[in-house]
Amino acid sequence: MNPGYRLSDIVGRFGGELVGSGDTLISQVATLASATATDLAFLSSGKYRQLLENTRAGAVIVGKSDRDATDKPRIVCDNPYVYFARVSSFLNPGPQTEPGIHPSAVIGEHVDIHPSASIGPFCSIGGNARIGKDTVISASCTIGENVSIGDGVLVYAGVTIYPDCIVGHHCILHSGAVIGADGFGIAMDEGKWLKIPQTGKVVIGNDVEIGANTTVDRGALDDTIIEDGVKIDNQVQIAHNVVIGAHTAIAGCTGIAGSTKIGRYCKIGGNGMILGHLHIADHVDISAGTMITKSIEEAGAYTSIYPFAPHRQWLRNTVHLRHLNELAERIGRLEKDLEVLERKKS
Amino acid sequence: MNPGYRLSDIVGRFGGELVGSGDTLISQVATLASATATDLAFLSSGKYRQLLENTRAGAVIVGKSDRDATDKPRIVCDNPYVYFARVSSFLNPGPQTEPGIHPSAVIGEHVDIHPSASIGPFCSIGGNARIGKDTVISASCTIGENVSIGDGVLVYAGVTIYPDCIVGHHCILHSGAVIGADGFGIAMDEGKWLKIPQTGKVVIGNDVEIGANTTVDRGALDDTIIEDGVKIDNQVQIAHNVVIGAHTAIAGCTGIAGSTKIGRYCKIGGNGMILGHLHIADHVDISAGTMITKSIEEAGAYTSIYPFAPHRQWLRNTVHLRHLNELAERIGRLEKDLEVLERKKS
Amino acid sequence: MNPGYRLSDIVGRFGGELVGSGDTLISQVATLASATATDLAFLSSGKYRQLLENTRAGAVIVGKSDRDATDKPRIVCDNPYVYFARVSSFLNPGPQTEPGIHPSAVIGEHVDIHPSASIGPFCSIGGNARIGKDTVISASCTIGENVSIGDGVLVYAGVTIYPDCIVGHHCILHSGAVIGADGFGIAMDEGKWLKIPQTGKVVIGNDVEIGANTTVDRGALDDTIIEDGVKIDNQVQIAHNVVIGAHTAIAGCTGIAGSTKIGRYCKIGGNGMILGHLHIADHVDISAGTMITKSIEEAGAYTSIYPFAPHRQWLRNTVHLRHLNELAERIGRLEKDLEVLERKKS
Repeated sequence: MNPGYRLSDIVGRFGGELVGSGDTLISQVATLASATATDLAFLSSGKYRQLLENTRAGAVIVGKSDRDATDKPRIVCDNPYVYFARVSSFLNPGPQTEPGIHPSAVIGEHVDIHPSASIGPFCSIGGNARIGKDTVISASCTIGENVSIGDGVLVYAGVTIYPDCIVGHHCILHSGAVIGADGFGIAMDEGKWLKIPQTGKVVIGNDVEIGANTTVDRGALDDTIIEDGVKIDNQVQIAHNVVIGAHTAIAGCTGIAGSTKIGRYCKIGGNGMILGHLHIADHVDISAGTMITKSIEEAGAYTSIYPFAPHRQWLRNTVHLRHLNELAERIGRLEKDLEVLERKKS
Repeated sequence: MNPGYRLSDIVGRFGGELVGSGDTLISQVATLASATATDLAFLSSGKYRQLLENTRAGAVIVGKSDRDATDKPRIVCDNPYVYFARVSSFLNPGPQTEPGIHPSAVIGEHVDIHPSASIGPFCSIGGNARIGKDTVISASCTIGENVSIGDGVLVYAGVTIYPDCIVGHHCILHSGAVIGADGFGIAMDEGKWLKIPQTGKVVIGNDVEIGANTTVDRGALDDTIIEDGVKIDNQVQIAHNVVIGAHTAIAGCTGIAGSTKIGRYCKIGGNGMILGHLHIADHVDISAGTMITKSIEEAGAYTSIYPFAPHRQWLRNTVHLRHLNELAERIGRLEKDLEVLERKKS
Repeated sequence: MNPGYRLSDIVGRFGGELVGSGDTLISQVATLASATATDLAFLSSGKYRQLLENTRAGAVIVGKSDRDATDKPRIVCDNPYVYFARVSSFLNPGPQTEPGIHPSAVIGEHVDIHPSASIGPFCSIGGNARIGKDTVISASCTIGENVSIGDGVLVYAGVTIYPDCIVGHHCILHSGAVIGADGFGIAMDEGKWLKIPQTGKVVIGNDVEIGANTTVDRGALDDTIIEDGVKIDNQVQIAHNVVIGAHTAIAGCTGIAGSTKIGRYCKIGGNGMILGHLHIADHVDISAGTMITKSIEEAGAYTSIYPFAPHRQWLRNTVHLRHLNELAERIGRLEKDLEVLERKKS
């Protein structure tokens, strides 16, 4: 645990208005519900005001409209959640790793590993690979030949990067991620699938985070591209030749099929899928569990969730889906018949 | 292969009524269809009685209502499937592993590894980690600093546990599982995603099984919790701050989004998703492929499957879904018009 | 990069009709859009003819109907995509690996490793395992006891194969694949899940490719079987006792539940699911995102996609799904009432 900082020191560093005692000692961040006297908590939304009343936090971060919602020492700012994130990063700087190459690591020829980088035990680093300044490769990673990894990258244990792939600066790759495996390229040839060699690579920009057990396939001929600032959750599958635009976020278990191009600042919910060879515009939000089957050229929110229900009710309603065409035809016939009747009437 | 046990020895150990020769030698369990003369098979349901007639098994396990459905030596009991499971566990005790630390393993400082535990080749065990009695850590696992693993745990090859996580007693973790990676916590800040440090951990109870390539993220501030007796299949994603109640079972490829609390004794089918910040009551069954978008406060079965059909029929029916609102309005108009007509009539 | 081949050499090796200069030097394949003067590109479909006009490729592969669509040196053949795949395989022969066992590998007793095979650093090879001719086991793989791997197999880094599994000849297993983990077999017994020992194994035929982070579970009693020529993409989950027929292709993120038998030459789209204990005929195409809940006995295409829409439109339409039964009943009543009216009329 860190020694603690005075609340006034925190305001000095991160800005905002200090209300109450600046001498309050803060050693960690916490939720309103679990905070203790040396914790700094935050109120992200008015609906948690009840928690604010009962919190035992030493101090809180609040928005301007909640300036007077508590008597606690507090920091008043525009975006309490962002402020909290900054303080948390400051108080929790992440694992410190010693520079240097673990003696068990197997290092190929002609590598360029910065002296400040750390290569963990049981890593294999292929020939001609480049590992940048302050980059950490944790235990049991396999980095292929000619791979280039930038500065300040954190690669957790058990990551595999296939040959020739490029990772930018300040990226985070979580355990089990596989970057650059072959795309699923096959052609039927006289009763057998012929493998299409996947000769492209994966190019990952700066400030990208890739979740645990996520896979990003190399391109078939051209490259698969993940632009700057993209955040990808766990167990996401990015197929060959996909392009993910800068600052797009993709939640867990989602699949993006081959050659699809996704714009910038999109938000893609979990467990959905985007079919191949589509184009998704910038600023598109796709709901969780949604299957996108056509290109989307306009920003906005898109959904394809089939609503859940108690199983019996689901059965009762869903049976009609197989006959929706008939239902529509019956409505059409009713309309015609009624019109005939009305005409006779008048 | 084990030397074989007399059927009477098995009944002596596991109970049930022995009918027929107790001297029948049993060396393994098998299905009715594939069993041979030294195998013990079981009849779990009356619909397999045809298989019972033709089986070459040396003996069978049957329920009380099937006591006389065969002439074979047999064990009559309440739950043949459970009985079979017990016998199978007895006959197939799992891999025997030598205690001790493989010389290639890299062990941090101040670890507490029980002398009966086994640490495989190419494992990295972080400082201050605790590994319990009879626990097996197979090859190429990475166990982070301050991780605590209980007694009798079986960790298969290639598992990663991030720092500070806790695993109870008698758990099984399959290959490629990643426990404690960062939750997907990001906040948009002036055009860039700001990472929210994930300072919670994962706490796994006793008797939990976690499937291959499943991921359980650490909490953002508080912990992610998997209670006792939970069984999780392969490729499941458990997001940060989720709580899974005791004895809940989750089938493969399912995603549970952040901060959702799932009750006890739930059964969740494969390839579904439960959105974040929900509460699911005890004894809820969720069908495979179902997306849960709201909290469920009552036990029962819930479903959201959209029925499949031959593609052409699907097309013909599904086109109306985009116009369901119009169809409903047309029905409403028809009802009104008909009422008008009827009133005129009378 | 390879030194380059004359176009006439390529035609000599792979057939087809050469039109234009056979002396054109080709060193790589590329797309029409990105090709340069030493690249061979291909036209797979008439709709890319615009790209053909503008390509800077040194030569192109075209179908017979496009024989005269360009002045470039060209190869005219029946299936340009298959032709291209063959040339690409020839020009990109894949990684060359030195035979032999890396000194860091841990090798069990009584193994049978062919002298031409390559075992990478940090591999664990269990006792009695068999590794065939020219097979490559890359870094950090764990191969269990009694595993048999055929000839010419390429196992990428970080693959785990549990004991007793069998892999045929000329297979490719991508990083993070887990073969033979326990199937999800549990039985409720007095308030606790009892584990059903999974005593079957996985049997993989020849020419099978298995994607990154894909899992294939071992059988409960009998085996899980992947027949010859099956191609499986990333993050697919194959449960216990599944049988996948020869030459079936399965796209990413799909789950196949236990004991389902899938025919030959099926194509299964991404992120779908097939429930357990079903039978799928040969030559069945299942659309992406489709959930199959019943056996399919006829070849053809099947779909269950719920169509996506802008979120507001989706809301407006989808609300009626919960009342589809009522809508159907209202239509029925309208029909009756109208009939009554018409009868009175006449």
